[in-house]
Amino acid sequence: MRLSRYFLPTLKETPSEAKIASHRLMLRAGLVRQESAGIYSWLPLGLKLLKNIERIVREEQDRAGAVEMLMPTIQSAELWRESGRYDAYGKEMLRITDRHNREMLYGPTNEEMLTAIFRSFCKSYKELPKMLYHIQWKFRDEVRPRFGVMRGREFLMKDSYSFDVDEAAARRSYNRMFITYLNTFSRMGLQAVPMRAETGPIGGDLSHEFIILAETGESAVFCHKDLVDMPAPGLDVDFDGDLQPLVDERTALYAATEDVHDEAAFMAVPEDKRLSARGIEVGQVFYFGTKYSEPMRANVSHPDGKERPVHMGSYGVGVSRIAGAIIEANHDDEGIIWPLAVAPFKIGIINLRQGDEQTDAACESAWKALEAAGLEPLYDDTADRAGAKFSRMDLIGLPWQLIIGPRGLKDGLVELKERASGERQNLSLDAALDLLRTVCASS
Amino acid sequence: MRLSRYFLPTLKETPSEAKIASHRLMLRAGLVRQESAGIYSWLPLGLKLLKNIERIVREEQDRAGAVEMLMPTIQSAELWRESGRYDAYGKEMLRITDRHNREMLYGPTNEEMLTAIFRSFCKSYKELPKMLYHIQWKFRDEVRPRFGVMRGREFLMKDSYSFDVDEAAARRSYNRMFITYLNTFSRMGLQAVPMRAETGPIGGDLSHEFIILAETGESAVFCHKDLVDMPAPGLDVDFDGDLQPLVDERTALYAATEDVHDEAAFMAVPEDKRLSARGIEVGQVFYFGTKYSEPMRANVSHPDGKERPVHMGSYGVGVSRIAGAIIEANHDDEGIIWPLAVAPFKIGIINLRQGDEQTDAACESAWKALEAAGLEPLYDDTADRAGAKFSRMDLIGLPWQLIIGPRGLKDGLVELKERASGERQNLSLDAALDLLRTVCASS
Repeated sequence: MRLSRYFLPTLKETPSEAKIASHRLMLRAGLVRQESAGIYSWLPLGLKLLKNIERIVREEQDRAGAVEMLMPTIQSAELWRESGRYDAYGKEMLRITDRHNREMLYGPTNEEMLTAIFRSFCKSYKELPKMLYHIQWKFRDEVRPRFGVMRGREFLMKDSYSFDVDEAAARRSYNRMFITYLNTFSRMGLQAVPMRAETGPIGGDLSHEFIILAETGESAVFCHKDLVDMPAPGLDVDFDGDLQPLVDERTALYAATEDVHDEAAFMAVPEDKRLSARGIEVGQVFYFGTKYSEPMRANVSHPDGKERPVHMGSYGVGVSRIAGAIIEANHDDEGIIWPLAVAPFKIGIINLRQGDEQTDAACESAWKALEAAGLEPLYDDTADRAGAKFSRMDLIGLPWQLIIGPRGLKDGLVELKERASGERQNLSLDAALDLLRTVCASS
Repeated sequence: MRLSRYFLPTLKETPSEAKIASHRLMLRAGLVRQESAGIYSWLPLGLKLLKNIERIVREEQDRAGAVEMLMPTIQSAELWRESGRYDAYGKEMLRITDRHNREMLYGPTNEEMLTAIFRSFCKSYKELPKMLYHIQWKFRDEVRPRFGVMRGREFLMKDSYSFDVDEAAARRSYNRMFITYLNTFSRMGLQAVPMRAETGPIGGDLSHEFIILAETGESAVFCHKDLVDMPAPGLDVDFDGDLQPLVDERTALYAATEDVHDEAAFMAVPEDKRLSARGIEVGQVFYFGTKYSEPMRANVSHPDGKERPVHMGSYGVGVSRIAGAIIEANHDDEGIIWPLAVAPFKIGIINLRQGDEQTDAACESAWKALEAAGLEPLYDDTADRAGAKFSRMDLIGLPWQLIIGPRGLKDGLVELKERASGERQNLSLDAALDLLRTVCASS
């Protein structure tokens, strides 16, 4: 992509309304623009980021055997009356009346709707287990939206729903999502710690939140330090196999959010292993048994011929919130430092003297070579000064900068800068392209 | 994908509420489920279709130089008061009040929001032209939603917006979308005819609708027959070049929707070339000059130092509606017949005797070979009878059926059926796989 044809409105000033680094940087780097309180447009660079996060979430859901579908944003109030949540949900639910005076709402989550879909099609234990998910915009009318996309009102969530014949089978579905979430966050360069958590308006008695430790996190969390360094299970996990040992290994160590924190149990953790910190919740898993299937009569026939309510769980990932969480964990004074796997572009090309024939030609040839390798770079072909180009490229945080100017070219050299380490090396254009093809292809 | 692990709830009965073929078939083939009047869930097979349509729309927008972003579904009423459309839009706009009693709405289109984004960042003619688009759910509170996804309330639309320095430049942007739409629909196997159309609530004085001829279409249309056979411009069009001759070639012949129909002009068309028919609108393009930029003060400075309102156009494609339009144009008594480019799966494998060791092994090896070739097939590995498998596969309309059973295998043969022609051939599994790799790779 040529920057001259792109739409990348970066800001020089730090927006005063932004209290935390990720919010400031998302505004300054031209990733999002606030349209109303807690409601954002995703500008081109931000949308690329969002799609990369979404793609990783999707790939790991598919790998775990979940099947994607898509439910609408607007739901009927009737459905929520069936479960009893219409009145219980409170003011966070955006309630709507249509032209025929029917009560509707903008879905904050989809337990009711998917239970209704399930009951209209699935009648027998033979059709179980089922794990369905969708990635769709949700709305929660937060009283004080803040921290940019971290606590917005309109937000993108991946939510999965499992249907099983009994509690033991449902627990296996829970484990599948538990394990796949660790892999999902790990692929984005995030170390997520699963912690026991309150079930809140979703319900049930078993729930874990997946927490990224960060000073700016909204929740106080308490955990055994070893959990923070424990590697993700890995993409070669057999989701048809027994996942319980992998889950046990992680739940054996103390980890809890503030709401369910047990000080006595925490004190039993060796003192040098006790970690009391703040964290950002990027995912949560719930097992709630028959909380929805019973009132909504989502029954399946069992081998004994009797009908019983299906056992359910639900599993959410905050896709848009992750964008903020990644920045909280990856930035410096100059700007964002994207992990390669989610970077909107992996490579930026900086032309140090637009209009200089030799420099333009070298930049064009680098651009075409990288395009041909499937590594779409962002090519800064604007007439801006070199200094402005350097600081913009640092601000938007692309992992690799290929810097091409007349002085280097005289000696047959270009400069390659790695954003994370700040390391620079001078090498021939061909060697730089070879190196980029190697380091970028692996993600 | 193994059907036993998928979620494909096909219906035996024809739903009585569905009046047209596409609506009936989308319900029967398990593509969608109605959640409320005019509001649908896209079940797994339907979502795959929708994503294929969306992908083609996106690829052609990108090819034409448009830049993707994403605006939210919920907008503030304030913005629409600036343009004067808040009161003018009428009851089709879903109006919402949030918990702080702020007036909001579910966006039926995004002229106001993108004008506001543009004016906050772009100040000079030097930043023009700009062409931005997004693919997002919209809501129009139709008084009588009908025909399934063809006239739903919540629907997926691709809408592009162009910003230019003057009318001549804006006309070039209009031409870019005009031409790219023809290519877009053609890639989906649809012959779209551009017709002069009313501008309605979007405004302006220049507009074309892109119409697919179909008996069940909602609009009466009138055009010169040659337009129906005119091939699309082709993917090698140079969008930086002069597109006017390509547009003129098409607009020189009479073509108009009912609303702007000129009977006298139509009568000037040679009688054997006069076509009076019904059609489905799948896209519409508008040039409306300064209708939004003037009241909303979206000005750019010109070379002479003066500020003037930017010239705008907008360009919509009904992504979810196209799903219905494709089925209207491609079905028979047995079910849907997908064009290869949009088919949810290109290939279905039918195992005629699940549990027979040799048949299972041949199906598995076919499945793996096709997966390895990047041609994810849908493998019917259920215990259903062969007859049920045949009619389900015809109903869901995958272009190619690979039918494997013990009788054929005894002679080393499998059967390959092309859904569109009904042609069947017996050949070795290896020959069948070779043929599938060839015919499916080209799309």
